[in-house]
Amino acid sequence: MAEVDGGFRALDEKKLIDYIKATPAVSSCLGNDLEGLTIKEVGDGNLNFVYIVISSSGGSVVIKQAIPYIRCIGESWPMTKERAYFEALTLKEHGRLCAAHVPEVYHFDRNLSLIAMRYLEPPHIILRKGLIAGTEYPFLAEHMSEYMARTLFFTSLLYRSTFEHKQEVANYCGNAELCRHTGQVVFSDPYRVSQYNRWTSPYLDHDAETVREDDILKLEVAGLKSMFCERSQALIHGDLHTGSVMVTTESTQVIDHEFSFYGPMGFDIGAFVGNLILAYFSQDGHTNNDKDRTAYKDWILKTIEDTWNLFYRKFICLWNENRDGNGEAYLSDVYKKPELLLLVQEKYMKDLFHDSLGFGAAKMIRRIVGVAHVEDFESIADANLRANCERRALEFAKWLLKERQHFDSIQQITSSLQKTTP
Amino acid sequence: MAEVDGGFRALDEKKLIDYIKATPAVSSCLGNDLEGLTIKEVGDGNLNFVYIVISSSGGSVVIKQAIPYIRCIGESWPMTKERAYFEALTLKEHGRLCAAHVPEVYHFDRNLSLIAMRYLEPPHIILRKGLIAGTEYPFLAEHMSEYMARTLFFTSLLYRSTFEHKQEVANYCGNAELCRHTGQVVFSDPYRVSQYNRWTSPYLDHDAETVREDDILKLEVAGLKSMFCERSQALIHGDLHTGSVMVTTESTQVIDHEFSFYGPMGFDIGAFVGNLILAYFSQDGHTNNDKDRTAYKDWILKTIEDTWNLFYRKFICLWNENRDGNGEAYLSDVYKKPELLLLVQEKYMKDLFHDSLGFGAAKMIRRIVGVAHVEDFESIADANLRANCERRALEFAKWLLKERQHFDSIQQITSSLQKTTP
Repeated sequence: MAEVDGGFRALDEKKLIDYIKATPAVSSCLGNDLEGLTIKEVGDGNLNFVYIVISSSGGSVVIKQAIPYIRCIGESWPMTKERAYFEALTLKEHGRLCAAHVPEVYHFDRNLSLIAMRYLEPPHIILRKGLIAGTEYPFLAEHMSEYMARTLFFTSLLYRSTFEHKQEVANYCGNAELCRHTGQVVFSDPYRVSQYNRWTSPYLDHDAETVREDDILKLEVAGLKSMFCERSQALIHGDLHTGSVMVTTESTQVIDHEFSFYGPMGFDIGAFVGNLILAYFSQDGHTNNDKDRTAYKDWILKTIEDTWNLFYRKFICLWNENRDGNGEAYLSDVYKKPELLLLVQEKYMKDLFHDSLGFGAAKMIRRIVGVAHVEDFESIADANLRANCERRALEFAKWLLKERQHFDSIQQITSSLQKTTP
Repeated sequence: MAEVDGGFRALDEKKLIDYIKATPAVSSCLGNDLEGLTIKEVGDGNLNFVYIVISSSGGSVVIKQAIPYIRCIGESWPMTKERAYFEALTLKEHGRLCAAHVPEVYHFDRNLSLIAMRYLEPPHIILRKGLIAGTEYPFLAEHMSEYMARTLFFTSLLYRSTFEHKQEVANYCGNAELCRHTGQVVFSDPYRVSQYNRWTSPYLDHDAETVREDDILKLEVAGLKSMFCERSQALIHGDLHTGSVMVTTESTQVIDHEFSFYGPMGFDIGAFVGNLILAYFSQDGHTNNDKDRTAYKDWILKTIEDTWNLFYRKFICLWNENRDGNGEAYLSDVYKKPELLLLVQEKYMKDLFHDSLGFGAAKMIRRIVGVAHVEDFESIADANLRANCERRALEFAKWLLKERQHFDSIQQITSSLQKTTP
């Protein structure tokens, strides 16, 4: 698990071209047509450098390089570039399990922490930007539920043997630094005074303080943090917000798997659903830009419902199809009676639902009073309006986190959302 | 994590002497006085060969060798001898954390899966035998609560950083085969028809069948199995029944750590308490041998209460002493307010209590209708009397497993035990 440092160098465009020329696995993606390459650096994320490389004959590749610190903060917050190893590993594994929604990896260079992968061509955009623009994606729930059901089911003990499971868990323990980072920024920093926390000040000064002083909230968050750190339920993406998904109206592609490890399934489902809820609350800050967003808000609620309900159906379907396989959590001859199998499945999914609501709520809170914010709110120029949207989202998240055990269906959540009016 | 096979050979007495002579770390334990050694094989356990070696000048050592199958079943049930590596590792780590109650390791040979360790001299006996004999151990609860509090606290995220934790978890994933074995014999086999299951037949035929058809029980057991497989809460002993403890009236020594791994704390606490409850129910089968066992049963109940209550106190004490340390589960500046710290501690201990009751009950059930039984019952010669004791223990365990969430204190458990009369 030791970090591989041999020969690391951060690439610039010139060095990148030299690297491509010297690397057949990459140059072949460009049809070996390496004169007049168009190179564009597009790493708008928080962490890495990302280059789109296009050859004059139309070949293309994305080159992503991790650097040993957090790009948006700088060298003062170091972060191992070994994350690229885990990103490449999970891209390949999740790609094997759900090829339709994970871009192909062409090449990985561990020394350079560099991944060459499929270029997601226009009109692919980051889902979050589409949600801000008010674009409907008719297949989003279908695709994301497919991605989550397949990646989570097939990497869990419902499908895997203990041996396969323990071996994989052991390997991903090497991604400890990114787990630690997530644990800190999601479950700890928002609940204490931290130099990196920020919020829409002065409007939310009191709200941020209230979060830090809410004992019941902090009690619940402690339980979620322990589950995040201790429970190796499946190979999760680890950062599945709406900025980690690229979309067109027909295509859905999940990217940025560097935070992946064996963790609780609800952390992925919650991240995605929680960020859809953030998008929902941000809509009232975007109404003045263009058309009325009422119908779009309904589409978001419908997408939240469909995501969970389809996930539920697909996950149970995979379970039933594979109930006689190698999975060791529920041996088929112990749980062969149909009504008993149904009972354990309902219990499993109910627990997963509550986990997802809890993690989703925690991810919402940290985006409002923690270090990293979301463009859904940040793009609302009027600070007072922005603060109002954020406050409503924050109140909803706190309530959801505390009351999550009392919900039985996703419709209860979307109904509650509908009742929150500005 | 690959198994080391180079040069393994099962030792007999002759080869053992040659080995001792060639191994200074062992021969020095015997004062290098190697003529006229007394060697006695005492492996009465299920798995290994254990030799007591004593020199004529009074030096002594125990040599324990793992063989690549389960001794009591034979080569038809293989089990990696690499378990000795994990046993030695945990003996050393738990010994470092609680030297008073873990025998010292003098030497470990990975190729031979051989551990040389302190000989626990007479009158040390296996605790289970003492419980059958009706012997009171006035310091048992004090010592076992000390062992469990220290080993579980210091290997959890309450004390460890995420880095230390993940590194240790990764290493112990290598003990997958023994985890898989436990998972199968504790959480699966008793709930299905299995060639290895046995029970006091024909008396308990119907009881065993009832266990296999109890849907609610199987639903609860599924949750416990998932927790056992997925939750890396602390470095647990993994097999902490009353046969893994050697005692005198003054000394308590925990042995047989080969099942150790990063798992749920409640599995250790439950194993110990569950086996004390088995001892309790077996007493009525031993009354005819000698004196009345009423007072002894009260002592067992008192020991159960004291074990949990002292564990609780010691564990919280360690937590408070180390609250400003490296532990990342509950950062001190998030949980600094005394009443909030108390609130999270109470929640943590309540969850742990329920986990312990669940695991304890599951361990009881498997000792009555699964592959491995306990001498507490096996030594009751009258099969009808034995079956009656076992049935009462089984009924209690099933009830405890299903109702465990409703208990707040260990006194509620011991009161319920007291009310179960033959």
